[in-house]
Amino acid sequence: MREPLRIAVLGAGRIGKMHAEHIVHHVPRARLVSVVDLHEELAQACAVACGIDDYGTSLSSILNRSDVDAVAICTSSTTHTEIIEAAAGAGKHIFCEKPIDLTLERIDSALEAVESAGVLFQVGFQKRFDPSYQRIRRAIDNGEIGTPYSVHIASRDPAPPPIEFLRTSGGLFLDMTIHDFDMSCFLMGHDVMTVYAAAAVRVDPAIGAIGDVDTATIVLQYGDGTLLTIENGRSSAFGYDQRVEVFGSKGSIRVDNSYPNTAILSTEESVRRDVPYHFFLDRYKGAYIEELRAFTEAVLDGKPSPLSGKEARMPVVIGLAAKLSLKARRPVEIAEIASTV
Amino acid sequence: MREPLRIAVLGAGRIGKMHAEHIVHHVPRARLVSVVDLHEELAQACAVACGIDDYGTSLSSILNRSDVDAVAICTSSTTHTEIIEAAAGAGKHIFCEKPIDLTLERIDSALEAVESAGVLFQVGFQKRFDPSYQRIRRAIDNGEIGTPYSVHIASRDPAPPPIEFLRTSGGLFLDMTIHDFDMSCFLMGHDVMTVYAAAAVRVDPAIGAIGDVDTATIVLQYGDGTLLTIENGRSSAFGYDQRVEVFGSKGSIRVDNSYPNTAILSTEESVRRDVPYHFFLDRYKGAYIEELRAFTEAVLDGKPSPLSGKEARMPVVIGLAAKLSLKARRPVEIAEIASTV
Amino acid sequence: MREPLRIAVLGAGRIGKMHAEHIVHHVPRARLVSVVDLHEELAQACAVACGIDDYGTSLSSILNRSDVDAVAICTSSTTHTEIIEAAAGAGKHIFCEKPIDLTLERIDSALEAVESAGVLFQVGFQKRFDPSYQRIRRAIDNGEIGTPYSVHIASRDPAPPPIEFLRTSGGLFLDMTIHDFDMSCFLMGHDVMTVYAAAAVRVDPAIGAIGDVDTATIVLQYGDGTLLTIENGRSSAFGYDQRVEVFGSKGSIRVDNSYPNTAILSTEESVRRDVPYHFFLDRYKGAYIEELRAFTEAVLDGKPSPLSGKEARMPVVIGLAAKLSLKARRPVEIAEIASTV
Amino acid sequence: MREPLRIAVLGAGRIGKMHAEHIVHHVPRARLVSVVDLHEELAQACAVACGIDDYGTSLSSILNRSDVDAVAICTSSTTHTEIIEAAAGAGKHIFCEKPIDLTLERIDSALEAVESAGVLFQVGFQKRFDPSYQRIRRAIDNGEIGTPYSVHIASRDPAPPPIEFLRTSGGLFLDMTIHDFDMSCFLMGHDVMTVYAAAAVRVDPAIGAIGDVDTATIVLQYGDGTLLTIENGRSSAFGYDQRVEVFGSKGSIRVDNSYPNTAILSTEESVRRDVPYHFFLDRYKGAYIEELRAFTEAVLDGKPSPLSGKEARMPVVIGLAAKLSLKARRPVEIAEIASTV
Repeated sequence: MREPLRIAVLGAGRIGKMHAEHIVHHVPRARLVSVVDLHEELAQACAVACGIDDYGTSLSSILNRSDVDAVAICTSSTTHTEIIEAAAGAGKHIFCEKPIDLTLERIDSALEAVESAGVLFQVGFQKRFDPSYQRIRRAIDNGEIGTPYSVHIASRDPAPPPIEFLRTSGGLFLDMTIHDFDMSCFLMGHDVMTVYAAAAVRVDPAIGAIGDVDTATIVLQYGDGTLLTIENGRSSAFGYDQRVEVFGSKGSIRVDNSYPNTAILSTEESVRRDVPYHFFLDRYKGAYIEELRAFTEAVLDGKPSPLSGKEARMPVVIGLAAKLSLKARRPVEIAEIASTV
Repeated sequence: MREPLRIAVLGAGRIGKMHAEHIVHHVPRARLVSVVDLHEELAQACAVACGIDDYGTSLSSILNRSDVDAVAICTSSTTHTEIIEAAAGAGKHIFCEKPIDLTLERIDSALEAVESAGVLFQVGFQKRFDPSYQRIRRAIDNGEIGTPYSVHIASRDPAPPPIEFLRTSGGLFLDMTIHDFDMSCFLMGHDVMTVYAAAAVRVDPAIGAIGDVDTATIVLQYGDGTLLTIENGRSSAFGYDQRVEVFGSKGSIRVDNSYPNTAILSTEESVRRDVPYHFFLDRYKGAYIEELRAFTEAVLDGKPSPLSGKEARMPVVIGLAAKLSLKARRPVEIAEIASTV
Repeated sequence: MREPLRIAVLGAGRIGKMHAEHIVHHVPRARLVSVVDLHEELAQACAVACGIDDYGTSLSSILNRSDVDAVAICTSSTTHTEIIEAAAGAGKHIFCEKPIDLTLERIDSALEAVESAGVLFQVGFQKRFDPSYQRIRRAIDNGEIGTPYSVHIASRDPAPPPIEFLRTSGGLFLDMTIHDFDMSCFLMGHDVMTVYAAAAVRVDPAIGAIGDVDTATIVLQYGDGTLLTIENGRSSAFGYDQRVEVFGSKGSIRVDNSYPNTAILSTEESVRRDVPYHFFLDRYKGAYIEELRAFTEAVLDGKPSPLSGKEARMPVVIGLAAKLSLKARRPVEIAEIASTV
Repeated sequence: MREPLRIAVLGAGRIGKMHAEHIVHHVPRARLVSVVDLHEELAQACAVACGIDDYGTSLSSILNRSDVDAVAICTSSTTHTEIIEAAAGAGKHIFCEKPIDLTLERIDSALEAVESAGVLFQVGFQKRFDPSYQRIRRAIDNGEIGTPYSVHIASRDPAPPPIEFLRTSGGLFLDMTIHDFDMSCFLMGHDVMTVYAAAAVRVDPAIGAIGDVDTATIVLQYGDGTLLTIENGRSSAFGYDQRVEVFGSKGSIRVDNSYPNTAILSTEESVRRDVPYHFFLDRYKGAYIEELRAFTEAVLDGKPSPLSGKEARMPVVIGLAAKLSLKARRPVEIAEIASTV
């Protein structure tokens, strides 16, 4: 395909604006051609911030333009599948923020549209593009730690999002743990057999009031017996808590939190450092850039998607199993969920 | 009571010999008066190593001696309750290696004997006496981390014990995880509600062949919703893996592994340090000494037991729940176990 | 001044190319207007890589252009003062790579030209813009460590540059330690009283053959007694060694090396991580960007230079003192050097 | 020689009492036979604390006893050589606290007496027996870091001793740095060529008033060019600062401070741990025990002294060179000092 890849960003909220700026400043082989948002002032503000004049409010217009090669879907989750289908129909390559959708039916329908159209489709689980998690993956692939026996993921946000957002988020497992389920797929593949979830409301009773939980532990067991544990929380006093460890027959590898500076201060009180990154956009800035570079490279060079629809469907399956486990207070077989479709 | 406290060590195996030597060299307020073992040569060897002449093979003789104030029970687990009852009957104070027994019936019977006799009774869960875990406990008690929301314990042995030993050990949960269940009691108290255990045989098929498992993840949930996860393994390539972390509303505290030296070596390959302590007697040497000092001090100064029978019973309850959970493939309510007695 | 700041990069070698790319991709308020190099093919290659058409070989032409607001001088050190004087004469703001020059006479002459012209002048000691070193500075300024008593800087390159480069580099102290002398000024100010340097040829006899050294320890003492030690080396097996520590009356603060990933691998051999950044352009990428942003902001917003000529002159004074100390085998008073001008 | 080795401790101050207790509790092959101190109540208190009845005030009496195989000299430094000569004359093996003396003349005289008598003589530089520093030594010996190029020692006490003590201590270099000079000998051998010392009074003007300094940096250079830097201070807000690093052609090895516990606390303020050991007897408890075990073993098994008089003389030579360097404000050749005797 002709370079640069011409991308339109759909949705000019926080994440859309970030991707738009990354395209302009950090993806040399791509160009931002337009920003679309139902709220014109948001679209305009984003375009101005990115130094382009082209913005709009109409999805159909943008999909009809021949100078748009690809779209980055950054609208609210409930609109994803409809836009995917329209974009695929228009022959546009698609980068889509996670999750594709909260239901398997709509996901499968969207993925069929993608396949029929033959466009490249990539989902925005950015953590896979972080160099430290990639180092874990490499250690597994290289046999540096032997056969994996167990995995531990600690994943906590600094503070809960607004209740209004949570109300339609799909709940902790599909909104937040979904990233950790994707990490589980990245590191351990797709052969999950059972899912057990235990949870509580500890951070904010308002989260309980809308039927959600804010603190959870989820245990996955794989076909070969491997055990994977995820610890989640909607609040973390010291900032964004993002740690992964894989323990295997020949050793273990782990990634601890990341920090804005490396200075260590020693006084009569303690030996200390400043807290980790607080904001996910800071912690994963490099990873967000890399995922767009990988998308651009895959389209331009005719490579397979770095994170296909099939890959991105599995975290939703696990998330639905976790929801059922919590409700039914028992471990759930993945087959129970898979068979629902 | 008159100082020093005169202790006879019962059982001159590895752990008995260690306690005997600690009494001689590290517990100034105690004195080792005799070593008893059914195997005379073991008793003699231990006595010689400790620089005393007094040893024997008869339990009843030692319990009849007026120059014995206390006994340290280091025989095999199945003999504990019988010896406890005899020693209590003879008015001896009792330090007993963990676990008291593998059944609640016998535990309760032994604890009744202890209570009737009015002797001091302490169980050897040495980890409670480690300064780093005590620092965690202090952080909880001081409110430094606010209200605990979740706990994570990683606990792995460097290599499995002989199959012969495992055959009568009570299984992974009652032999090994029992220490972690005690840690859970030490840090979180006794209000466990449900226990979920998942496990596999990964390290050695021979362990599976005797009906046991070697790799496990156990999730406890407490009355207030707190989630506690234990990751266990019978093998760890890098040595003894012993880590604890408590995450709370105001922060977290964690203890990583301990090392024989602190040197960091940097070469073109890596930045590295030598592996952690390999052997539990090395990792917890200080804690083993402290538990005997605490026992001696409690008896001599008329203080309450630092780790009473009631404290030591709860880990067995949790262990039995974990066994049932694994067998029944479902979370088990602690009440189910408690009500069996 | 009208935005964006229009900068021409002079010198399209490794460092010039880096600055050119940073202007294009990472300094939104600046624009790269041209690249100049005596070697036309270098200038062209750099321009193409940056996505611009404008390049050339003539310094005078570029200084006469009214669409050039500022120049970034990235030519070889010996040409700096001549270009500074020409650029100042043409009223261009100046970003100049370190060092200004190897002699105080020429430095002072160039700085006079800058002052007469009233242009903004900034020298490229990028380490001042690193967030970790800035954290050290902040700890000093905030009183977090009380009054500084001693400073320790370890600064070693992964491997020596080509002998041809070293031949005209000014020697270890003016080529490499100059960065550490600037760090000393950044953290401790300019009140150095004495300089003692000891050194040796350990890495490569060829370095000794051209009259230079490759391993050195330099001790500065300040007016208030503070002691600052720099350890230098032209080779480091594990990569770029860049550490700074300040010890004061109330505590200490230190910055250790930086790493491309944070993964920790534990096996039966060791507990280890991959080596630190190897290449200075990787280690200080963020700092190189920040210094250009700061330059751009200072010019556009009429702020003082973030790193003025007066600041950048002092490291050369200390470097000359170190050279004299090594030759004369005695501590040298800074006043001896200062008085030579 | 007949076991156990029967040792009398001479001097029942802080360090003598520690050694006496270590002999009783931690050196199985030795026995404490008596404690001698000019102050009878000190001798008695120490004997009681150690559980023995034998104490006294007369040096000559103890040296005449045939049931004393060895003495541990823990009296004030100025009395060491006289006691060494008397003990050697009486055929007693000698463990002597550092330094032997503050003058080379008296040291040499005492060492001649030792040699004539053929007794074993060991000096109490305990740091050599610390497992972490031994790991550094091993890395050098094994070639793990290649050829050493430079060494950095940071060594600071938590707080200065009383002025009264400092008045007769020999000054910072002979009282405190002497340990670091011994570390330099332990790691790098005896081929020091030049010594440069810079220092200041920062911690307490009273230290300056008695002609001493409290903050210093000393640079040693060896025959092969290796540079060794020591940073000293009489005060450290965060506790006992004891770090060593050796950088070589193939890598580096370093030992950081030691801590009473390993817990890491993360809150919204910082990620921190409790401060390092504060007291040198705590930091080096294991090393103090090991040096006495090594002494006992050497005498009983007829091995050479683990830290001979010749080894222990060199730190004093370097200390005298440092004193001269500070006074003369120039680097001093070791040959200048050596030739004074």
